[in-house]
Amino acid sequence: AAAVMASVALIQGASRGIGLEFCRYILAKKSPALVVATCRNPEAAAGLRDLTGQYPGKIKVLKVDVTREKDIQDAAEIVKSEFGKLDLLVNSSAMLHPSGKGETSLRDVSSQGLVATLTTNTVGPLVMAKHFSPLLLKGNGGFGHQPKDSSKHHSAILVNMTAKVGSIGDNGLGGWYSYRMSKSALNMATKNLSIELGRGRPKVVCVCLHPGTVNTDLSRPYHKNVPKDRLFSPDHSVQCLMNIIDNLTWEKTGKAYSWDGSELPW
Amino acid sequence: AAAVMASVALIQGASRGIGLEFCRYILAKKSPALVVATCRNPEAAAGLRDLTGQYPGKIKVLKVDVTREKDIQDAAEIVKSEFGKLDLLVNSSAMLHPSGKGETSLRDVSSQGLVATLTTNTVGPLVMAKHFSPLLLKGNGGFGHQPKDSSKHHSAILVNMTAKVGSIGDNGLGGWYSYRMSKSALNMATKNLSIELGRGRPKVVCVCLHPGTVNTDLSRPYHKNVPKDRLFSPDHSVQCLMNIIDNLTWEKTGKAYSWDGSELPW
Repeated sequence: AAAVMASVALIQGASRGIGLEFCRYILAKKSPALVVATCRNPEAAAGLRDLTGQYPGKIKVLKVDVTREKDIQDAAEIVKSEFGKLDLLVNSSAMLHPSGKGETSLRDVSSQGLVATLTTNTVGPLVMAKHFSPLLLKGNGGFGHQPKDSSKHHSAILVNMTAKVGSIGDNGLGGWYSYRMSKSALNMATKNLSIELGRGRPKVVCVCLHPGTVNTDLSRPYHKNVPKDRLFSPDHSVQCLMNIIDNLTWEKTGKAYSWDGSELPW
Repeated sequence: AAAVMASVALIQGASRGIGLEFCRYILAKKSPALVVATCRNPEAAAGLRDLTGQYPGKIKVLKVDVTREKDIQDAAEIVKSEFGKLDLLVNSSAMLHPSGKGETSLRDVSSQGLVATLTTNTVGPLVMAKHFSPLLLKGNGGFGHQPKDSSKHHSAILVNMTAKVGSIGDNGLGGWYSYRMSKSALNMATKNLSIELGRGRPKVVCVCLHPGTVNTDLSRPYHKNVPKDRLFSPDHSVQCLMNIIDNLTWEKTGKAYSWDGSELPW
């Protein structure tokens, strides 16, 4: 199928929190952009059902559990046949730990908890990149900033949602073993992607973004420790992140940025 | 049981390569130190059998597959009852990828390959740290350098073998997704361990060490790309690494060092 003209964004982990807000923002503010929203259980995704009613023909919901490579492969086939390309991919889903709480000490560390967290937060986004990178390489560059020099244009943007606690250099408190490790490994994956998808032309801009501490299920047990003006609503966080994305150029690939645009150390 | 007086080092992944060489070095050069050597299949470990014959009563071989938390737990029980403490723990085993070759591009990336590599290279060493940290906290500080100020003494040293390709900041070539990601996550785990095991007293010095490119099974497919004077024998590499370990003090915890003592960026 020929690629559609409108920009196409795929948001993975779109049923709630930051992922859902990315869908809402793009549909409301980036018209005529189209959204592909993936989540584990579309039937239970009330927020996505609302958006489908509000923006008919503009959003397509697909079932993807990122721990199942077959789900990802099937979704990529559908996007390929219906749209022929992608301009933006946001890997948004993550878990803190299967228990719902980050490890406060080694006592809480277990093989199963580590493997489950790494599989969802790290392996999932990279396998998404594997299957969707051919479509990102066919993008029309509908997101980000394209400089005048067309040799520096990008075809698409790939965003992996990281977290400041995934920065090894910034780690002063410890704890949260599984989550921190999953995000450090995801940072490495993103750096690797920026090299592989930036070698030739077209080029895909690959970055990590830290959303701040956002009022979602993931962070809920910890809200009491966060100053009120630093606990963001998902829509405030996504507004900050889309502001960064709008200004991304090829030169900014392979880095991790915080919600305020500052670069995070590895 | 009361802790033994002699220094005790546990080398995990000791059947060959760098791990085996650590055992040999400590038995030969650090007498009267005792060695606990763990590997997946002691019956097939000819090098360890030789050392047992050469140094009777000085080395104990235990079966540990680091992907099985129960193995690790059982080994910790045995070390606790026989020695009551540890002065040095070296996590040495690692795989490049289940296929024996690092991924050269996204095409080679798979969920199974990623999970298997992360489980062995990252989860294994951290679960080792979980079960052996109580014994490290009971160490007599038999390895490393103890400064005159006794408030800065350490009880033990924990070494996770990392690799320069696990440095995100140093990554200029890409590829080897699983291996690179596993080592970045291990670097984060080590930083976290340095914080948790450095909060009170006694303190455990936790570092990552990069052995250089060593002539072992792991790197064999890539030897043709390495200049001859940069392809180390395991005994040369271990000599360099033991030189770093001999000079470790509490101030040097929570960092990654290369074989020549220089600090690696995260």
